Amino acid sequence: MEIPVDDGIVLYTYWRSSAAYRVRIGLALKGLAFESRPVHLVREGGEQHQDAYRGLNPQQLVPTLLHDGHVLTQSLAILDYLEERFPQVPLLPADAAGRARVRALAQLVACDIHPINNLRVMQYLERDLQLPADARTQWTLHWMAEGFAAMETMLAASGETGTFCHGDRPGLADICLLPQMYNAHRFGLDLAPYPILRRIETACQQLDAFTGARPEKQIDAA
Amino acid sequence: MEIPVDDGIVLYTYWRSSAAYRVRIGLALKGLAFESRPVHLVREGGEQHQDAYRGLNPQQLVPTLLHDGHVLTQSLAILDYLEERFPQVPLLPADAAGRARVRALAQLVACDIHPINNLRVMQYLERDLQLPADARTQWTLHWMAEGFAAMETMLAASGETGTFCHGDRPGLADICLLPQMYNAHRFGLDLAPYPILRRIETACQQLDAFTGARPEKQIDAA
Repeated sequence: MEIPVDDGIVLYTYWRSSAAYRVRIGLALKGLAFESRPVHLVREGGEQHQDAYRGLNPQQLVPTLLHDGHVLTQSLAILDYLEERFPQVPLLPADAAGRARVRALAQLVACDIHPINNLRVMQYLERDLQLPADARTQWTLHWMAEGFAAMETMLAASGETGTFCHGDRPGLADICLLPQMYNAHRFGLDLAPYPILRRIETACQQLDAFTGARPEKQIDAA
Repeated sequence: MEIPVDDGIVLYTYWRSSAAYRVRIGLALKGLAFESRPVHLVREGGEQHQDAYRGLNPQQLVPTLLHDGHVLTQSLAILDYLEERFPQVPLLPADAAGRARVRALAQLVACDIHPINNLRVMQYLERDLQLPADARTQWTLHWMAEGFAAMETMLAASGETGTFCHGDRPGLADICLLPQMYNAHRFGLDLAPYPILRRIETACQQLDAFTGARPEKQIDAA
């Protein structure tokens, strides 16, 4: 059930953006209605570089979230804000050590896989370094495999891993994992070495909050 | 003054690691004593890849922090943990929107500049892509300049910017900015376009917590 928010939540999003996909899942898990405003990252050189959007988000990245008169950027900062303003359906555990574990798993993806493979980096590899397509794909797969191997090891080593990354409720680490799994499928990463990640992906895909946030379900999907 | 911590805090660190440098500043701002255990990232192929350290940190990155029986990884997750366990000298403002702003500034550096320029990426550019030294330096400077330009714009646009990134107390955004400024000096980035970043850097360097955390002050400095 969606909770109406008086002043509304607006999300500037792109269907295939991992970072926007994270926020879509977080909003859905908390049952928060929002208005999607698509920003096309590729068409006409990228709408994120146009003045109107740059004024909201000087990094020229998605997502940007509007709420209560605030303009919020950076997906993890947005998710922390939502956690503080809408504590129902918590995305983080209650104990400090558990929270640190979940944040570390989330940041493994959000700091150490995704930004290195993001659109602007891939464009630099192609345009500035003239790297051919197969080498660019190898680049993408390399950083995913390195990050996923570490994440699989961390999940295997901890008794706190449950149906989801942390216990039996989905949270911030799952929110970061699922969009990265989407990218892994898209680029053809061999997922055989990561049985725990695959199991958690399957568990998340049973939930409407995760499936409804998928790229192909978005109003701007190609 | 340092607050003794009964069970001790141990930080696995490397003098030039931006991420370890962040945690050193955070610990110092909170007045928390800690034991430094250096992990040499370059010598003998990198001590972070040896089994003993990999067992603590499967990502084979620094820092790792030990406290109260917990093994914590990812610098921002560690800083959030410290904020929750040791709320004295807060690193984040009290209001949700202010916290989101500070987190977004911190993540601009910690997600969108630093990981793209980190050692393992530079090694991939050199070893796997055979990119010459001048092109590698251009890569480094490109991502710093892009990130700093956005950060300068965000700081200039907000009435919440003060002596520091957020008001007149140093916090998480400053903690992320200062190590990135160190890297900018090291690689010779032209800092003229970023007067606010330079002003905040100068303000931070008046404080012992920031100067004591500098790379050249560490026990493993070359």
